[in-house]
Amino acid sequence: MGIAGGGQLARMMHQAAIPLGIDVRLLAEGPDVSAAQVIPDTIVGDYRELDVLRRFADGCDAITFDHEHVPTKYLEELGEFAAVRPGPLALVYAQDKADMREYLGDFGVPCPAFAVCDDAAQAIAFGEAQGWPIILKTSRGGYDGKGVWKVDGPDEILEVFANKPTVSAGERVRIVAEEYIDFARELSALVVRAPSGQVVAYPISQTTQEDGICVETVTPAPGLDEGRAAELQVMAINIAAELGVVGVLAVELMEARDGRIVVNELAMRPHNTGHWTIDGAVTSQFENHIRAVLDLPLGSPELRDDVVAMRNVLGGAEPDLTGALQHVFARDRAARVHLYGKTVVPGRKVGHVTCVGTDVDDVLRRARHAAGYLMGDPDA
Amino acid sequence: MGIAGGGQLARMMHQAAIPLGIDVRLLAEGPDVSAAQVIPDTIVGDYRELDVLRRFADGCDAITFDHEHVPTKYLEELGEFAAVRPGPLALVYAQDKADMREYLGDFGVPCPAFAVCDDAAQAIAFGEAQGWPIILKTSRGGYDGKGVWKVDGPDEILEVFANKPTVSAGERVRIVAEEYIDFARELSALVVRAPSGQVVAYPISQTTQEDGICVETVTPAPGLDEGRAAELQVMAINIAAELGVVGVLAVELMEARDGRIVVNELAMRPHNTGHWTIDGAVTSQFENHIRAVLDLPLGSPELRDDVVAMRNVLGGAEPDLTGALQHVFARDRAARVHLYGKTVVPGRKVGHVTCVGTDVDDVLRRARHAAGYLMGDPDA
Repeated sequence: MGIAGGGQLARMMHQAAIPLGIDVRLLAEGPDVSAAQVIPDTIVGDYRELDVLRRFADGCDAITFDHEHVPTKYLEELGEFAAVRPGPLALVYAQDKADMREYLGDFGVPCPAFAVCDDAAQAIAFGEAQGWPIILKTSRGGYDGKGVWKVDGPDEILEVFANKPTVSAGERVRIVAEEYIDFARELSALVVRAPSGQVVAYPISQTTQEDGICVETVTPAPGLDEGRAAELQVMAINIAAELGVVGVLAVELMEARDGRIVVNELAMRPHNTGHWTIDGAVTSQFENHIRAVLDLPLGSPELRDDVVAMRNVLGGAEPDLTGALQHVFARDRAARVHLYGKTVVPGRKVGHVTCVGTDVDDVLRRARHAAGYLMGDPDA
Repeated sequence: MGIAGGGQLARMMHQAAIPLGIDVRLLAEGPDVSAAQVIPDTIVGDYRELDVLRRFADGCDAITFDHEHVPTKYLEELGEFAAVRPGPLALVYAQDKADMREYLGDFGVPCPAFAVCDDAAQAIAFGEAQGWPIILKTSRGGYDGKGVWKVDGPDEILEVFANKPTVSAGERVRIVAEEYIDFARELSALVVRAPSGQVVAYPISQTTQEDGICVETVTPAPGLDEGRAAELQVMAINIAAELGVVGVLAVELMEARDGRIVVNELAMRPHNTGHWTIDGAVTSQFENHIRAVLDLPLGSPELRDDVVAMRNVLGGAEPDLTGALQHVFARDRAARVHLYGKTVVPGRKVGHVTCVGTDVDDVLRRARHAAGYLMGDPDA
């Protein structure tokens, strides 16, 4: 199985591939990136170059992705070497937010009001009609809050359009203007779909973002009505089936203060809001992603405990993460720590901590303390 | 962390090292052995050669082992490069069964009656005094039932002495004669000890051997009195402390039909009777072994479910293990399968299956079916 992109998602996919006896080949951005540290069969090269992609794909049975930035135009060509999963037709909806919004709108999925804008005038007209503030997003290339702006009027819109990128990985970047949702909280519906059409749905997670970066999840989402949770799972299953997704589909949702739940983003790869599954579910999202990509039956997505808290470790004042484990493990002998082998840079995702148990407040407190300590904050 | 030996134990140690952010260096017997397939920093060489061992150790902070066959005389020298764990003084008792028996006897641990024999006459005298049959074992180099004989009289003893190896990895091989224990079942007490002296004890497992090879474990051991289980845990903790073990110590036990429990073997590395911990305990034996070797606080050894069954996959009529997963995963979506990347050879350990649940019979039936199918027996 080939994995394009050498970040922590590829690293955790390798970890899940080992017990399945699957040989992994990695296409990495550099010799020392997160996944390249742990995968022997690593090719270092640029995923935006067709000859590099061909060399990587040759000999693989199936190819999947650590990120969504491999140029759409090359994905079909790779299909000559190996099964590309998710397929190019599905992946475009994770790569291009304008295409995603238009598709989901046609399909009847609840979304914020939106307009795909060719110029600033269209975005200003959308804002005037919708009422301020509105959200602007680049259609391609954004991640972790980059490429998203909350704007209060025409001046800010002109500034975004003046500075936005025009091209990302060879594709045109458009601007999507969206209704600003004053959300009470964010949720994530994570499903995995196999080529056969089999789908498993994980319990709905509550997710917390800070500055556009996921910092915490709690699963199952506290206080979410069971019927409502099942509806969201069915919606995610339907989107996965409709788009022909193979592998993980994460449907990021916003729950508005008026109770309405709308789709924010789609991701088609193991997702930060599913990291809790390694320690908290019978089968992790990484293993189920691999099983889907290789057309093996999917494993149970059920919770192994009553409640699971996941807290991201973002680069902070503590440069020596392995050393900091001394305290974390001494204090909490059941905390599950995952480090990504990345150099600590402020704000960079360098690991995560998972705690399972029976009480939401207890698991959250434990996960926050452990992750906080690893971020250089001993009082967390 | 360096691991000497490239079998499945090293492979599973690497899997556990990835989330801890630990860099692993492997000393492998060949470029394609089980662990070498998944570990980038692999040195291929002979663990019986000092210059190979030195090259492997140079740059490591700590060294541990996939097997117990690194020559004792080289272990101390390796200590100049890195912490060797378990240390040479402890490891000798796992390497040499004669030394182990003498030591445990002096220490007051319940053992079968035994005699270390320099020649056949001594073994015959032991048999005559003890009553036939008796057990003969080579002091070094045996594993998975190799180097163990049940003998009924002098003729068989003469045959063993005529054919036994005299040297193993540069050390003299002696013969240990032991009382034959007509056991009702075998048990395993697994503990992990850190350099600080912290010890964690896993629940006692019931283990089943066939032809000297572990085929199955059930944890906690069914019908074992809680007080008795605690006594066995304390005994294993005391042995680990007394020997100064660092890392996993597996104390293999025989429960005689008269209720007496005696020590059969010691192993100082992650052990087949602890494979259930990957899916069934809060912290796996592999992670706790690494934490001990690197002097990190140990993690909780508690069960995550009521009962855990582990069944080994031995090479059988099915050469394509990954293909056979189609059936196994379709039938049981909660079965946890671990394949070692080894070529299927009849009787060779090529993987294991773990099932967790609330009912002993149910988890055993599931684990036996899944492992049986992978061994080419669809009716298992």
